[in-house]
Amino acid sequence: MRVVLKDPLDMHLHLRDKEMLKVVAPLSAKSFSGALIMPNLVPPVTSVEDVRSYKERILEAVGKERFEPYMTLFFKNDYDYDFLKEAKKYITAIKLYPAGITTNSEDGVLSVDSRSLGSVLEAMSELEIPLCVHGESEGFVMDREREFLSVYEDLAKNFPKLKIVMEHITTKESVSLLDKYENLYATITLHHLYITLDDVAGGLLRPHLFCKPIAKRPEDRMALRKVAFSAHPKVMFGSDSAPHPVDKKESFGCAAGVFTAPIALQALCDLFEKAGVLENLQKFVSDNAKEIYSLNPPKKEVVLVKEEYEVPNSFKNVVPMFAGEKIGWSIESVS
Amino acid sequence: MRVVLKDPLDMHLHLRDKEMLKVVAPLSAKSFSGALIMPNLVPPVTSVEDVRSYKERILEAVGKERFEPYMTLFFKNDYDYDFLKEAKKYITAIKLYPAGITTNSEDGVLSVDSRSLGSVLEAMSELEIPLCVHGESEGFVMDREREFLSVYEDLAKNFPKLKIVMEHITTKESVSLLDKYENLYATITLHHLYITLDDVAGGLLRPHLFCKPIAKRPEDRMALRKVAFSAHPKVMFGSDSAPHPVDKKESFGCAAGVFTAPIALQALCDLFEKAGVLENLQKFVSDNAKEIYSLNPPKKEVVLVKEEYEVPNSFKNVVPMFAGEKIGWSIESVS
Repeated sequence: MRVVLKDPLDMHLHLRDKEMLKVVAPLSAKSFSGALIMPNLVPPVTSVEDVRSYKERILEAVGKERFEPYMTLFFKNDYDYDFLKEAKKYITAIKLYPAGITTNSEDGVLSVDSRSLGSVLEAMSELEIPLCVHGESEGFVMDREREFLSVYEDLAKNFPKLKIVMEHITTKESVSLLDKYENLYATITLHHLYITLDDVAGGLLRPHLFCKPIAKRPEDRMALRKVAFSAHPKVMFGSDSAPHPVDKKESFGCAAGVFTAPIALQALCDLFEKAGVLENLQKFVSDNAKEIYSLNPPKKEVVLVKEEYEVPNSFKNVVPMFAGEKIGWSIESVS
Repeated sequence: MRVVLKDPLDMHLHLRDKEMLKVVAPLSAKSFSGALIMPNLVPPVTSVEDVRSYKERILEAVGKERFEPYMTLFFKNDYDYDFLKEAKKYITAIKLYPAGITTNSEDGVLSVDSRSLGSVLEAMSELEIPLCVHGESEGFVMDREREFLSVYEDLAKNFPKLKIVMEHITTKESVSLLDKYENLYATITLHHLYITLDDVAGGLLRPHLFCKPIAKRPEDRMALRKVAFSAHPKVMFGSDSAPHPVDKKESFGCAAGVFTAPIALQALCDLFEKAGVLENLQKFVSDNAKEIYSLNPPKKEVVLVKEEYEVPNSFKNVVPMFAGEKIGWSIESVS
């Protein structure tokens, strides 16, 4: 059995910088046509010059492979209209992090609400720059996303022309919100389609499955699967693939992030095939994103075949999801 | 400020065997007068000979320190009355594990209910041997203890003369059950009085705070604190101190268990003092257990003083809770 995926897109990707960038960028470029690149470097990507030079470094790391890094800015509340108008030439979206909520988010926003962020969001709305949000409160770890939903509602109501992407949603409540506001969209990761908190902490503790937002309950995973499997037009694949060196994962205090970029398409095929919805994967992994973001990525055809793929124990010093395990689908060719 | 604790008892302790036993037994013996020793070795402690020889190995590891290891058997459904009558001379309780529920519990009970365990429980009841239970279902990790409560109710109702100890309780629902059945008791650990899931997985992931049952929600911790701080007469301190070598904790798959034995009394003083209930600690950490189990442990007075204690980064190859941090209370002397 074979599947041809046209122009696969990863709409939420961490490529990091320096040595790590060189390790992971080619792996994404190998199977994806393009990706939305997260701006949470240290320091974060906050100027046109930052965006341009980071994009150059990414393309250099990618090498000859056709791959479009869709760039983002790290949301700051002092961006003005003229800056955003100029920035728009180089970016696809702006990513908002509540301060301190995840890796390298210390420079994020202290208070996320339509009033205090009004002028920037107004300008983004007018300039048609989508807003991507890491939507978590500072509450109890299992409640953070749910507690943030009122913020999404506030933003969605007050900026009805602003496209707002709820990044890496993990709960059934977030799924429900999608159909309530026309301007709300979402990305879903590979790992949140696969795992619950049971996989992270129900047997042995699994640092390589630890991420933010943390994987939730079985009924949450079921809701995510339902909306992804049906290729809901407001839902896109975004891996949130977030590499850390193994010594930052298997350690006294383990950093958040699951590394999935090189195994994502294979694992998605496996999951969608088993659910009997393989025909919806093209939309989930490319068409919906093209439509939502008006993208025209480099042409790329990825042929996947139902043959076992043994996931390496590591890619250089980064341990992927499913390390050492077998996935039912392999990439046969890319053209 | 000083506190004198008389004959402190740790009513749930893992001492392991071989090299690990030699590392951890002296640390418990240093500050406790006695402890209830868990039987989940590999293979488990299931015969009188096992109990006697394990006790000998413990006493040898302890050395000259006065310390009573109160021994337990690993619950098996084929124990008969005569065996239990003989065993009673050497044990204080029998510990029941549902199969596969935690470290070295593979030989545990497949189905925990009053009917299938009837003959053993009948005999234990008649012989007045308390039953200690690791009470978790095989459900979702945050629900396991709650789902097990109906089993406790079934056992408590059907064997009203059997003392049943709900080990290391972690939820407000378990606390509520205590007053519903006369023959239900509970142990509470140090770490479940201190942490919630937020401490394990809300910031960085903390393998040394990972245990079974996993730490729960803030409202659960509040209920545990309330019943411990008031020294409820049916509640005893049981550390569930469960050492693993550091390479089994900071690893690809981290084993469950928090190592607290050498810092438990200091941290309990700190917690009880801050709650303004230091006068109740004696009951929680000794008197209640003496009463419930009819114990007469070796005399030991531990004097604690309100002076900072810097917890070592490790005891040999085992990392304790609060490694490298400071606790407000130290052990001044033991006599």
